[in-house]
Amino acid sequence: MQKPSIPKGTRDFSPAEMARRNYIFDTIREVFRLYGFAQIETPAMENLSTLMGKYGEEGDKLLFKILNSGNYLAGVAPSLFDETAVNRLTPYLAEKGLRYDLTVPFARYVVQHRADIQFPFRRFQIQPVWRADRPQKGRYREFYQCDADVIGSDSLLSEVELLQLIDEVFRRLGIRIAIKLNNRKVLAGIAELIGAPDKMIDITVAIDKIDKIGIDKVNEELVDRGLSAESIAALQPILAISGTTAERLDRLESLLASSETGSAGVAELRAVVAPSLALGLDAELDLDVSLARGLNYYTGTIIEVKALDYAIGSITGGGRYDNLTGVFGMPGVSGVGISFGADRIYDVMTGLALFPAGLGATSRVMMANLGPAESAAALALVKTLRAAGISCEIYPDAVKLKRQMNYANNAGIPYVAIIGDKELADGTVTLKDMTAGEQQTVAAADLASLLA
Amino acid sequence: MQKPSIPKGTRDFSPAEMARRNYIFDTIREVFRLYGFAQIETPAMENLSTLMGKYGEEGDKLLFKILNSGNYLAGVAPSLFDETAVNRLTPYLAEKGLRYDLTVPFARYVVQHRADIQFPFRRFQIQPVWRADRPQKGRYREFYQCDADVIGSDSLLSEVELLQLIDEVFRRLGIRIAIKLNNRKVLAGIAELIGAPDKMIDITVAIDKIDKIGIDKVNEELVDRGLSAESIAALQPILAISGTTAERLDRLESLLASSETGSAGVAELRAVVAPSLALGLDAELDLDVSLARGLNYYTGTIIEVKALDYAIGSITGGGRYDNLTGVFGMPGVSGVGISFGADRIYDVMTGLALFPAGLGATSRVMMANLGPAESAAALALVKTLRAAGISCEIYPDAVKLKRQMNYANNAGIPYVAIIGDKELADGTVTLKDMTAGEQQTVAAADLASLLA
Repeated sequence: MQKPSIPKGTRDFSPAEMARRNYIFDTIREVFRLYGFAQIETPAMENLSTLMGKYGEEGDKLLFKILNSGNYLAGVAPSLFDETAVNRLTPYLAEKGLRYDLTVPFARYVVQHRADIQFPFRRFQIQPVWRADRPQKGRYREFYQCDADVIGSDSLLSEVELLQLIDEVFRRLGIRIAIKLNNRKVLAGIAELIGAPDKMIDITVAIDKIDKIGIDKVNEELVDRGLSAESIAALQPILAISGTTAERLDRLESLLASSETGSAGVAELRAVVAPSLALGLDAELDLDVSLARGLNYYTGTIIEVKALDYAIGSITGGGRYDNLTGVFGMPGVSGVGISFGADRIYDVMTGLALFPAGLGATSRVMMANLGPAESAAALALVKTLRAAGISCEIYPDAVKLKRQMNYANNAGIPYVAIIGDKELADGTVTLKDMTAGEQQTVAAADLASLLA
Repeated sequence: MQKPSIPKGTRDFSPAEMARRNYIFDTIREVFRLYGFAQIETPAMENLSTLMGKYGEEGDKLLFKILNSGNYLAGVAPSLFDETAVNRLTPYLAEKGLRYDLTVPFARYVVQHRADIQFPFRRFQIQPVWRADRPQKGRYREFYQCDADVIGSDSLLSEVELLQLIDEVFRRLGIRIAIKLNNRKVLAGIAELIGAPDKMIDITVAIDKIDKIGIDKVNEELVDRGLSAESIAALQPILAISGTTAERLDRLESLLASSETGSAGVAELRAVVAPSLALGLDAELDLDVSLARGLNYYTGTIIEVKALDYAIGSITGGGRYDNLTGVFGMPGVSGVGISFGADRIYDVMTGLALFPAGLGATSRVMMANLGPAESAAALALVKTLRAAGISCEIYPDAVKLKRQMNYANNAGIPYVAIIGDKELADGTVTLKDMTAGEQQTVAAADLASLLA
């Protein structure tokens, strides 16, 4: 028989991995709650009519579609069975798909439950999403997203709050970060300024790569993308902006002074940066005009977080959007959101050895099992320990003590408690510290307070 | 545009519902950990080769299957496009399915990761499962299971531990329960005793309904199922057993004395019941020879939990099995497990009003927003409150105070803190208790300790 396996791009999580993942999720969840965000959950399956067309043509292909139940061929014309035009058949075979992200289900949720929602709505959602992407290192077909959004308000205070929240999460996790900030209106202003307002996407796609490929290659790409030599020349002072965040903002303001949109973008950046600096952040706060993440979606602030001490893509991102729910017929819902990339955060924390020690162990103490009378006493003691909030277990079988000790050792259980004949007669228990290798015999009644 | 919706049988969970659901999940998770169970997670999608044939023919139909990605028709013979034989085509269109329960994925996990697992393995798993069942009241196509199993040991101490665990979970939730116990070997012994060893399934299917339809209808059904008058007569004293659990065990022991299997079952029940009564349970512990849950799977102890004060099906169930992983080529893995039914527990707690008050609110206090200078002070205060662990938020827009108060009121936020001109000048804050309707003005520096 073949050893069973799981679909490529998916993962099992062992107890040790779960402990580390929960450490990350619990930290994010706790901070979300501390910031007044309320949790929702949506179903794994959405109607394909909800999902299709929301992620571009490429995204539609990456949706996992659920084969209709029952006789899914009933009434389907045989002419549709055409392997050269499979997309014509698909809508007949599948009405539902797995969610691709948390944003579209959230937009759908808001429209569907609008009457019950208090706006501004501060929601968070931590659930898996599925994408039929080609699996590769660090890219999975099932992975969690951790999103927080404030919708129903244009106030830039929400951005200020989200930057504080990001700072708090990574402070708690012990990851040193830089928060990069930009604004879609600044990008539009730049395109306007250099005389290529219709080329904003081309410009941003190209300059987004400046960190990776350098300014010369970016300029070559701009030529390829049809930018004139004059435009490219006009762009250079903007790309060359340097200094502190305050200095960059001043310089950008003067460069974009002639563009109304650009100036509005700079003003928005100031309204986010100034209170953030006043409140204080552990994170570096970097103005980065080359940041263009999710451009077809964001309309104001753009946020991206990079780990300072570990080479990996962005570990959190987000931004402001004008029209979350328009596609579902509910216009005018603006908001701002962020999404933590749990898998990459996991990789950073593993790479930098940031997980606290002892995360893996479930039981703090294992009661050994030396036979029926001894295990009856052990069971009673276990009950006392649990009542005191101490995680513990009793070894179920009265096998050789060495085997029981091996189990405890391999499972990372820090203490083993033994009740043998002598302890049973004396009302004591022998407690072995598995790390130090030391042992002591104590009154059974004192064990809970000793381990507390 | 049509208002968007979700697939039938699936649900959105609002913040208020999530708070209540988390209360249940957190309680179960905490007790699982207290009992030394270690968490695993498996992917939502499994290979259909893992899932098919594990839940009977009916179960295979209820699996949600994932349409293969890309050109799923490539190389598929057109003759397979036959709506009278859709099952022939399905394996070509779908290689993956959504998990139907947590047991088969767990068995697959154990086989796949056997080299890394410490046995006995105490694992818990809390994840959604999907079934293409016809939706009806209380039956969903996506729902959570909360499972704990001890595998790799035959010891009945595991049963004792699981009964303690069940008792603790429902004690914490405030639900009064009866735990019903039976043993597959007792059922086999009964069939043997009444001279119908090959009719065990028929007998148990019929007597399982005794609470619903009464003894007379059960006897009629036994006739229909081909039991002889002698067999049915011999069965009556067993079905008539009454008294305390100890009395029932004694009576059952003498009735089944001639059956080796039946006697073994009684002995196992004693080994579970005696220590449980010695340790003490809040729950009623009822021996119930008509309990036949999951008979094709369980080989020893059978466990079912009923709420005492609310009419609903079983809210937890479980039992012992001999061969978890044989189907994946790894024989001899026995164990015992239980599964909490979170949705039914939710219904019981709602019906009996058992959820603690104030579960829904996210923020403990909302800072009102009266303008730029005031909100800057409010932001700083919010930071202090959060540093003290107090969940809070600032209203993002400087709209009319009445609207802000309405929001806080509707969101269930118990306090609103206001910084206006006067408070700004004085370094104070006015705190309004939204429940009592009272307000007081305090030094801003004292707010955190006041709300702590």
